[in-house]
Amino acid sequence: MKLLRVGTAGAERPALLDADGTLRDLSGLVTDIDGALLSDAGTLDRIRAAAGAGVLPALAADGLRVGPPVGRIGKVVCIGLNYHDHARETGAEPSAEPVVFFKAADTVIGPEDTVLVPRGSVKTDWEVELAVVIGRTARYLESHEEALAHVAGYAVAHDVSEREFQIERGGTWDKGKNCETFNPLGPWLVTADEVPDPQALSLKLWVNGELKQDGTTAEQIFPVAEVVRYVSQFMTLYPGDVINTGTPAGVAMGQPEPKPYLRAGDVVELEIEGLGRQRQQLKDA
Amino acid sequence: MKLLRVGTAGAERPALLDADGTLRDLSGLVTDIDGALLSDAGTLDRIRAAAGAGVLPALAADGLRVGPPVGRIGKVVCIGLNYHDHARETGAEPSAEPVVFFKAADTVIGPEDTVLVPRGSVKTDWEVELAVVIGRTARYLESHEEALAHVAGYAVAHDVSEREFQIERGGTWDKGKNCETFNPLGPWLVTADEVPDPQALSLKLWVNGELKQDGTTAEQIFPVAEVVRYVSQFMTLYPGDVINTGTPAGVAMGQPEPKPYLRAGDVVELEIEGLGRQRQQLKDA
Repeated sequence: MKLLRVGTAGAERPALLDADGTLRDLSGLVTDIDGALLSDAGTLDRIRAAAGAGVLPALAADGLRVGPPVGRIGKVVCIGLNYHDHARETGAEPSAEPVVFFKAADTVIGPEDTVLVPRGSVKTDWEVELAVVIGRTARYLESHEEALAHVAGYAVAHDVSEREFQIERGGTWDKGKNCETFNPLGPWLVTADEVPDPQALSLKLWVNGELKQDGTTAEQIFPVAEVVRYVSQFMTLYPGDVINTGTPAGVAMGQPEPKPYLRAGDVVELEIEGLGRQRQQLKDA
Repeated sequence: MKLLRVGTAGAERPALLDADGTLRDLSGLVTDIDGALLSDAGTLDRIRAAAGAGVLPALAADGLRVGPPVGRIGKVVCIGLNYHDHARETGAEPSAEPVVFFKAADTVIGPEDTVLVPRGSVKTDWEVELAVVIGRTARYLESHEEALAHVAGYAVAHDVSEREFQIERGGTWDKGKNCETFNPLGPWLVTADEVPDPQALSLKLWVNGELKQDGTTAEQIFPVAEVVRYVSQFMTLYPGDVINTGTPAGVAMGQPEPKPYLRAGDVVELEIEGLGRQRQQLKDA
């Protein structure tokens, strides 16, 4: 199923995108698509049954804003340098263990919302990423099979990054990863049963119509199952937590000088196979 | 005012600690001590008036667990190496700008809750810290005065840290800072009007009754006002966000070998002048 949230920011309603492209209202069944829903397979089954029975009212999509697909995101864990091709373009050695950093949940916005270039920024960069949404509380998972059983589904994430803040201002990367609006998510959460192999998805990103990233999750150094298993050794993952699993090659930082960092007015589009498409316009904060 | 939350985890009620040490029930006035309350000076004024009029019912403190003082914590921003004496003991050069990292809000527990030593941990360490609770949305603040006007109050935080996970496992520090139960907070939120000078507070921490940290916020490299101003240049701070402002000297990592890292059974106590006292027993995860 493709689950989503539509409406103005802070007042989104839960919805489902049908196989035939019709938007269906879920607000008669659930109050939101949040951690509680994701952890409750019974609720997902009821939604599936109602969709199958054709009893969900259609929603007119015209003019509706799509929000992030999960209402109450707990934390956003990010994996850095997780693609062979991206590690090469940044000049980094492949890491022996996954590199972990955070984005605050308050950086998450809808897939077509405006992205703000922070004040003082000269190195705002793009990163298309496969986001994993956790569906069950996960502690010290032991196997890849167990790890995948804790995944509710997948979505497109844009891990917007300010490289000067991230790398040149001292300390950890978090300073350049947490600016307001820096984590567009969506349009949908695609439930895990409809993504048979998360390591065989193509990811693409365009800036002003020009293809910049054209990768595949087959290039991930640490696959989704290993990322979830690994992270659960260091922290507890809860339903509604999100893991951004890293970006393939093609970011601005990896290009020859003058590097084409993002400016107000630029338009970024992102797509992952089967997970839908995002489009954001950049504006100055 | 000293604001707190009492009751079982997930079902805490808002309360106030009187000048004479009596616990007063606030649940007739507010549903929780959360971001919305903190941003609303009118609500704080009503609580103050009710307390002054002596109309708040007393709560029997016997057997009541104290939870973290804020119900809906947004994010926990942490400042690393922010005390001259602690930077010296770790061998780090004083940083030119504040070092920023994150703890997930789900690591926050009450001041007397059990702290878990993570599986596989051999370097679980302590850090007493002054926590700043944000009361008003803060973006690109320009002055120290403006920064302090966005602070709702202060609390004691324990920034529990696993040094091997933090430093020796690759990537940023976040891996060693986000284990389950790693951020005891409380007992109270003391409103900012009762902390006239946040740079003149003594901080103490004991392990099994032995004094390990005995510092003062006067040693902070970047004072509270500068930390809040600085962080607001990189991310938006919201009511209910918490900033852990760093720890003074005396952590296990700074001691001679064999370093006295924490084990199951150890008891840690923490105190900051005017902000109350914490006590946690360590157990294996």
